Amino acid sequence: MASDVVLSYSGGLDSTILLYRFLAEGKRVSALGFNYGQRHQRETISAKEICRRTGVEYKLVDISALNPIFGRSALTNSEVAVPHGHYADATMKATVVPNRNMIFLSIAGAYAISIGAKYVSFAAHAGDHTIYPDCRPEFAQAFDKALGLADWRRVELLAPFLNFSKVDILRSATQLAVPLEITWSCYEGGDVHCGLCGTCIERKEAFSLAGLKDPTIYRE
Amino acid sequence: MASDVVLSYSGGLDSTILLYRFLAEGKRVSALGFNYGQRHQRETISAKEICRRTGVEYKLVDISALNPIFGRSALTNSEVAVPHGHYADATMKATVVPNRNMIFLSIAGAYAISIGAKYVSFAAHAGDHTIYPDCRPEFAQAFDKALGLADWRRVELLAPFLNFSKVDILRSATQLAVPLEITWSCYEGGDVHCGLCGTCIERKEAFSLAGLKDPTIYRE
Repeated sequence: MASDVVLSYSGGLDSTILLYRFLAEGKRVSALGFNYGQRHQRETISAKEICRRTGVEYKLVDISALNPIFGRSALTNSEVAVPHGHYADATMKATVVPNRNMIFLSIAGAYAISIGAKYVSFAAHAGDHTIYPDCRPEFAQAFDKALGLADWRRVELLAPFLNFSKVDILRSATQLAVPLEITWSCYEGGDVHCGLCGTCIERKEAFSLAGLKDPTIYRE
Repeated sequence: MASDVVLSYSGGLDSTILLYRFLAEGKRVSALGFNYGQRHQRETISAKEICRRTGVEYKLVDISALNPIFGRSALTNSEVAVPHGHYADATMKATVVPNRNMIFLSIAGAYAISIGAKYVSFAAHAGDHTIYPDCRPEFAQAFDKALGLADWRRVELLAPFLNFSKVDILRSATQLAVPLEITWSCYEGGDVHCGLCGTCIERKEAFSLAGLKDPTIYRE
């Protein structure tokens, strides 16, 4: 399928808004989702539905065999509890999945090379920087350089939200008619958002600070 | 398992010699092999056997779901023939698997972060440079920088064969008692080496130029 951008796409708020932004810019997008043994595989149902609505190609890639490689991350190891509290708390470091973005973006890079896409992209944002090392601008810049040398043709990394807060991202969506109610954030991955884990707290707070009605159903 | 190096390990000549070199240096090694839908999965049998002999941890990671992502590579697409001829021929570009090393090394990086290993490694060598863009020194250098920023703790890339020819690598093995007869190169992946594909030709030539007896059984 001809595409301009291969997007690492979770079905969450940030990457969904990024998807709509690219479409509004006239870019052709292929979305890659990943099953990596995460508790919240629920997110891939959201991703698939949003791609269906937008007519975007969605490929769900099963790399769940990597689960043991990820060790003691709370997102992939059922023996480790998902921490409650604020997204920026030090306890959230339990939710780091080692080298996740490099793995996802490398696979996106392979697909971009295969189909002749010029870009790969992810929706890392400024709120991630203190917890997730592979969301920092310096990582993105270094990854872009490596990816540009991985093939004879240069593929580039687009990460337009690197210096946006989650509130900035939400505000940027107001003209884009994004179905925010379908997006999935919760790390627990139940039937509804738990309302207590770091990403639920961040989600609630972002809607509130952006002055937008939060369409999410939270258990707590 | 405590390790110093996570090695991207195919069971071929180069990475096997690199494994023995690390062991001779007193490094503790974990070896990662990959099932990515390659024709020559036969190589993983060699890898497993060599790890058994050396007491090295071997993890075979199943990422065969990536197969369609790799498009029209002759190594992963059964509709595309493996080219015969010299390893350095332009026709060998059909054997490039897009972004393979970045994917393998990213997964090795995740494991290194999980288990506290200081290094990841691969056995790219100078003979690869004209065919495989992700074996070039400039790629390795850029990847090392990105990997070093992917976690809060720096993990480094070791690629000591980057400027070695295959003959140099073979010669470096003479003191290491490497069971070269168990290693697997052939891209066709039959019961014995085909003797005609690029990597078989390269293997034969390297033994000959190094003045070593070639223990390999070739069909042709």
